[in-house]
Amino acid sequence: MALHIGVDIGGTKVLAAEVAPDGSVLRTARRTTPGRRVDVALVEDALTEAVLEVADGRPVDGVGLAAAGFVDADGERVMFAPHLPWRGDPTRSRLEARWGTAVVLDNDANCAARAELALGVARGQRDVLMVTLGTGIGGAVVLGGTVVRGRNGMAGEFGHMQVVPGGEPCECGGSGCWEQYSSGNALVRHARTRMVALRLDTTTALEELCGGDPARLTGPMVTEAAAGGDPLALEAFEVVGGWLGVGLANLVAAFDPQLVVVGGGVSAAGELLLEPARRALEESLVGAAHRVVPAVVQGRFGPEAGVVGGADLVRDRLRASSR
Amino acid sequence: MALHIGVDIGGTKVLAAEVAPDGSVLRTARRTTPGRRVDVALVEDALTEAVLEVADGRPVDGVGLAAAGFVDADGERVMFAPHLPWRGDPTRSRLEARWGTAVVLDNDANCAARAELALGVARGQRDVLMVTLGTGIGGAVVLGGTVVRGRNGMAGEFGHMQVVPGGEPCECGGSGCWEQYSSGNALVRHARTRMVALRLDTTTALEELCGGDPARLTGPMVTEAAAGGDPLALEAFEVVGGWLGVGLANLVAAFDPQLVVVGGGVSAAGELLLEPARRALEESLVGAAHRVVPAVVQGRFGPEAGVVGGADLVRDRLRASSR
Repeated sequence: MALHIGVDIGGTKVLAAEVAPDGSVLRTARRTTPGRRVDVALVEDALTEAVLEVADGRPVDGVGLAAAGFVDADGERVMFAPHLPWRGDPTRSRLEARWGTAVVLDNDANCAARAELALGVARGQRDVLMVTLGTGIGGAVVLGGTVVRGRNGMAGEFGHMQVVPGGEPCECGGSGCWEQYSSGNALVRHARTRMVALRLDTTTALEELCGGDPARLTGPMVTEAAAGGDPLALEAFEVVGGWLGVGLANLVAAFDPQLVVVGGGVSAAGELLLEPARRALEESLVGAAHRVVPAVVQGRFGPEAGVVGGADLVRDRLRASSR
Repeated sequence: MALHIGVDIGGTKVLAAEVAPDGSVLRTARRTTPGRRVDVALVEDALTEAVLEVADGRPVDGVGLAAAGFVDADGERVMFAPHLPWRGDPTRSRLEARWGTAVVLDNDANCAARAELALGVARGQRDVLMVTLGTGIGGAVVLGGTVVRGRNGMAGEFGHMQVVPGGEPCECGGSGCWEQYSSGNALVRHARTRMVALRLDTTTALEELCGGDPARLTGPMVTEAAAGGDPLALEAFEVVGGWLGVGLANLVAAFDPQLVVVGGGVSAAGELLLEPARRALEESLVGAAHRVVPAVVQGRFGPEAGVVGGADLVRDRLRASSR
């Protein structure tokens, strides 16, 4: 059986996976991302280790890289990534030479969209918005069944659409960016602030989960507390989900898609996130009474969407080039 | 020579025009739009009169209707239009039967985009955003050289993307919509408010143009005063142009187009509007240092873009069906 490996390169970790043609993840390897201020060779060493571990001595037919950053329109270079050291390096060709196997490269959200489109909840759909909520917001635009890459390969950078003029400062240098209001970071920030505010009066599930230290609170803890009915955690999802819906209303006004797929780590919360998002979308969307409002659904592949999409991308390229 | 007529159906007026294949407008006729609370037959009578006047006894080969409203994905019906009475009527087929000639129908901004793409400033471009600033904001998305219509035919409704949470109330029922900050209405509102505020101290060119009555101020008056260097009018363009750039930054983040074309009545102001818009776009756009920021240019066809695009649409359909 052919061996296709997808590699998701995030700001904190690298996930490599052998993926079957049906999207099943057969074997994985993880590494910590060395950081953004290190030599790119260190990051590429980490990728190499992860790929070798998954291959486990077998010949590799192709690797698809899903990178958390701006990938150029040709899929050759990571032009810029807030949490990775690449700045226009010829990453794809360099790794192809180093590994001696076919390598393709795309943005992680584009890969996630590809996974959902080819094998997941968006199968058979033509016009789809993919929004991934992790640390920040990633996104992809599918029109006519194809992921739109844009002139610079930067289409789908929804996280930095401004939703509040003069709002929360953002790592991108701007302020009021959507991902400051609807993301894992936003979820934790909201819950943490409310915990501190309520500190003296009550004990919540959140407090227990983080051992009494709001600074140690994480997104998965908020999800766990909300699933258990903790009112403070539920409120955080209500707020973050509401902002998700407001931003989606803007995107739906612009694209008028059939379907919205929400992926990324925060989407593991499912209806806790999606229900308030759907309500806000209905309320904010222009002409909602005169149109079919798109369904907003959770992605099938969750945190594995990047590796599944990366592997599918390289499999597809190899298939196309062998014709 | 074949006779193709484009008809732009706006909230206040109907413009019909004979258009040559190169986009030249050869003959026009105008009617006042009867309003939104009248019988649809009155509007269709006005269209008929305008078409007959342009035809002037000659046989008509086809008519392309460019309507200021939501046109369904099949181009058969105006589903909803704030200033027109149609609500899902089978307008296209009804007029085709009444006129005995080929009739096609699309949204006015889609027609404007088509005109600029086929014959104007966007010729040869693949990925283009068209934004039309008139009373409100209209828009169209061009990807791969084709106007994207979306599931409901509503793609490109940029005017109702929310740019200020809890901001200015909008006729759509929402608040803080982009067109409340960047449009002909916004321009006049800004200038009027400042006129009233400064009333007691100074006399401005604006005051002379509107005969001392701020309520009589119009967009073209603000443009005229700004062109003459009136500081208050220039300030209004600075503000409206700045908001144009902020909204464009959001759209460019999402679509990553090669080119942005600004049309509609307000675009007649040219650089007075576009220069502050470009500045704000550069400032607000994520990753501006790592990408080619698209050019922002004035459309070629101005207020005639709708009729030129409508005529081009019907010409193209007839050509395709005769193959």
